[in-house]
Amino acid sequence: MKSGNLIIINAAQLVTCSGSTAKKGAAMKELGIIENGALVIEDGIITRVGSTETVMADIDKSLYEVVDAAGKAVLPGFVDSHTHFVFGGYRAEEFSWRLRGDDYMDIMNRGGGILSTVQATREATPEELYTSGYQRLTDMLANGVTTVEGKSGYGLDTATELKQLEVMQAIDSHHPVDVVPTYMGAHAVPPEYKDRGGAMIEAIIQQALPLVKERNLAVFCDIFTEKNVFSIEESRRLMTAAQEMGFKLKMHADEIVPLGGAELAAEVGAVSADHLLQASDEGIRRMAQENVVATLLPGTAFSLREKYARARDMMEAGCAVALASDFNPGSCHTESIPLIIALATLYMGMTPEETITALTINGAAALDMADTIGSLDVGKKGDVIILKDPSYHFLSYHIGVNVVERVIKKGRLVMDNRHQLLNQ
Amino acid sequence: MKSGNLIIINAAQLVTCSGSTAKKGAAMKELGIIENGALVIEDGIITRVGSTETVMADIDKSLYEVVDAAGKAVLPGFVDSHTHFVFGGYRAEEFSWRLRGDDYMDIMNRGGGILSTVQATREATPEELYTSGYQRLTDMLANGVTTVEGKSGYGLDTATELKQLEVMQAIDSHHPVDVVPTYMGAHAVPPEYKDRGGAMIEAIIQQALPLVKERNLAVFCDIFTEKNVFSIEESRRLMTAAQEMGFKLKMHADEIVPLGGAELAAEVGAVSADHLLQASDEGIRRMAQENVVATLLPGTAFSLREKYARARDMMEAGCAVALASDFNPGSCHTESIPLIIALATLYMGMTPEETITALTINGAAALDMADTIGSLDVGKKGDVIILKDPSYHFLSYHIGVNVVERVIKKGRLVMDNRHQLLNQ
Ligand SMILES: [Zn+2]
Ligand SMILES: [Zn+2]
Repeated sequence: MKSGNLIIINAAQLVTCSGSTAKKGAAMKELGIIENGALVIEDGIITRVGSTETVMADIDKSLYEVVDAAGKAVLPGFVDSHTHFVFGGYRAEEFSWRLRGDDYMDIMNRGGGILSTVQATREATPEELYTSGYQRLTDMLANGVTTVEGKSGYGLDTATELKQLEVMQAIDSHHPVDVVPTYMGAHAVPPEYKDRGGAMIEAIIQQALPLVKERNLAVFCDIFTEKNVFSIEESRRLMTAAQEMGFKLKMHADEIVPLGGAELAAEVGAVSADHLLQASDEGIRRMAQENVVATLLPGTAFSLREKYARARDMMEAGCAVALASDFNPGSCHTESIPLIIALATLYMGMTPEETITALTINGAAALDMADTIGSLDVGKKGDVIILKDPSYHFLSYHIGVNVVERVIKKGRLVMDNRHQLLNQ
Repeated sequence: MKSGNLIIINAAQLVTCSGSTAKKGAAMKELGIIENGALVIEDGIITRVGSTETVMADIDKSLYEVVDAAGKAVLPGFVDSHTHFVFGGYRAEEFSWRLRGDDYMDIMNRGGGILSTVQATREATPEELYTSGYQRLTDMLANGVTTVEGKSGYGLDTATELKQLEVMQAIDSHHPVDVVPTYMGAHAVPPEYKDRGGAMIEAIIQQALPLVKERNLAVFCDIFTEKNVFSIEESRRLMTAAQEMGFKLKMHADEIVPLGGAELAAEVGAVSADHLLQASDEGIRRMAQENVVATLLPGTAFSLREKYARARDMMEAGCAVALASDFNPGSCHTESIPLIIALATLYMGMTPEETITALTINGAAALDMADTIGSLDVGKKGDVIILKDPSYHFLSYHIGVNVVERVIKKGRLVMDNRHQLLNQ
């Protein structure tokens, strides 16, 4: 029996989410369910998928760890394709100030806001960032997340941005969860660049991006395109330059103001555009046309008490919709996949099936990784979750509660959530 | 060292919630915090509370299990004072029908709705109800809940109602969580009593209640006072009869229609009135006057996409507000305390401090148990939770996520939530 060789048998439902590209529009309802299913993983890669009877016909069980999933639904691991999980300092008290209605400028003046995270991240040692980031990844894994995108963007200077990315690289090499790194030096305009966003973009293009590329520290380049942050023109400049240097593109687009971020994402061929609360009809149409994944982040809307993005309009326009946590220390301090599912199903008009697609194969597509993760297909990574319940419906029905019982990463059991009473 | 003898030292914050009655209005903000606190539990009862230095001055540590809570906030265990946690059958698919907008009557005709739970509960063996209820209580314990109220009401016939209560009694005697049982035979009007709610109430008073009393199976009597369910007159009849027989009173009041349930709860001297989404100003004023605890259930409003109860108005009128889960298989299939906290702080205008009061000492008051649980005071049960974080702010700041690390029940460590990576 070899590590990474594992068989799951008798799954009440094998929810395959089968596919190798994003599912668009109506296709998002297709979960590719196999009843009484089985799955073989060899050397961490899925090699067979089907009914237990068929799959087990000529298998030598002694070569595998065998997991009996009778009475359990089995799904691909979730892909959280938008997070800011490496940061210094918490902003717990600031959250209370915001709850009681304090003015954002007042909070900034008391040392709150994103710049307090920037300061704490600049001051943190790599070891401190590693330790807290590693623990957060473990908590995400407990939610069934097996691949996580992580962004820099709390340095806003080259040295700290590189530090964040290096920490992510180190975490990725030691933690079972896979980390997909995104450089996001253009996350905010720090005081030293006040009213000089364009100059900051040029500095990023000339200094930071070549270093990130040379050291192979990021797959994606991302920017916060927003009124009073980075303009459409500044964003176009960064996105096209980053693309020429070989980065794939993501954008924080149309979160607060309908600035045309969705349109720009389509124009430059971004892999995803994210947030999109204010995306225009034209922007949605263009994203569908250009296969830009619409990554929606309902945790942020919930936390900021904003309206949710127009998921149904996007799906009906033919977009591929992904869901992600946006986990960060300010606007959305939650990595809770159960909360995302609850908000999507109850408050965004997404069906349970669309929600699952958005967290698996479409999350993978939002990372341009739909050929290797996001579904239970032969040839993909053996990243699998086993629910404690017999059907995928419990993911939405058990509101806000983690129903993931066990997590398998590349064919190895890495997490068991079953609660044990002690001292009985 | 004796079981149930335990000391907690060095707590970054000892959040005592000190008190022996419900906290009303502005007092709900008072958490009674001791920094670098310590707590001694002997034979399951709290015997000392104070700063670590003071408390430890003349303690023989060898007589106790010592828990170092450096860097952690420590609070009383949560009290979930309104649940329906013993039931047969899940309604996961029905939830999907509801999500896609199916008409409630259509769902009923397909075998959904509360009557499907009634049927499944009638058919379930006591062993089946025991097993699922026991597991649910363990999941609640993982959320930091150390006392749970549980209602009958899925039998709607005497035999099944008694079966539910007997199962709760059995669970209570074997599970570390304490169960406070409520008889709620008047939970709905089954087909056999269609349009004869009054006759059903009489049958309850003549047949069921005396048996429940004789066998000591319930502390409280509860009723669903609502348009098209039980009227104010029927409710008054049951509540006064139950009170005469020695039951304490609870009411499901003013959830859907402003029927005057809050007023009736004040009139009959109920310990709590629950839901209250439509409670009138006069009802709120009367509840404050008569010390009826206002138990709010935001999980249900969230799940049904209703407006939330007017928590701020109630606190300003001088009510004691408690929060509870309403965990049940239909309108609110969640026991998530983190979700309740998120909804209360973000969507009901409650501060983090008020929310914690509502889940501890005021939850205890909603069970008329504020003299024995709900705060870290000398003489109370040693029911304590240790957060993984240094301040109570993380309960609301880490949105929708369980930050309870360990749970101590009557001086014994009964739950440890720390995630462990396997096979590393
Ligand atoms: Zn973001
Ligand atoms: Zn109820």
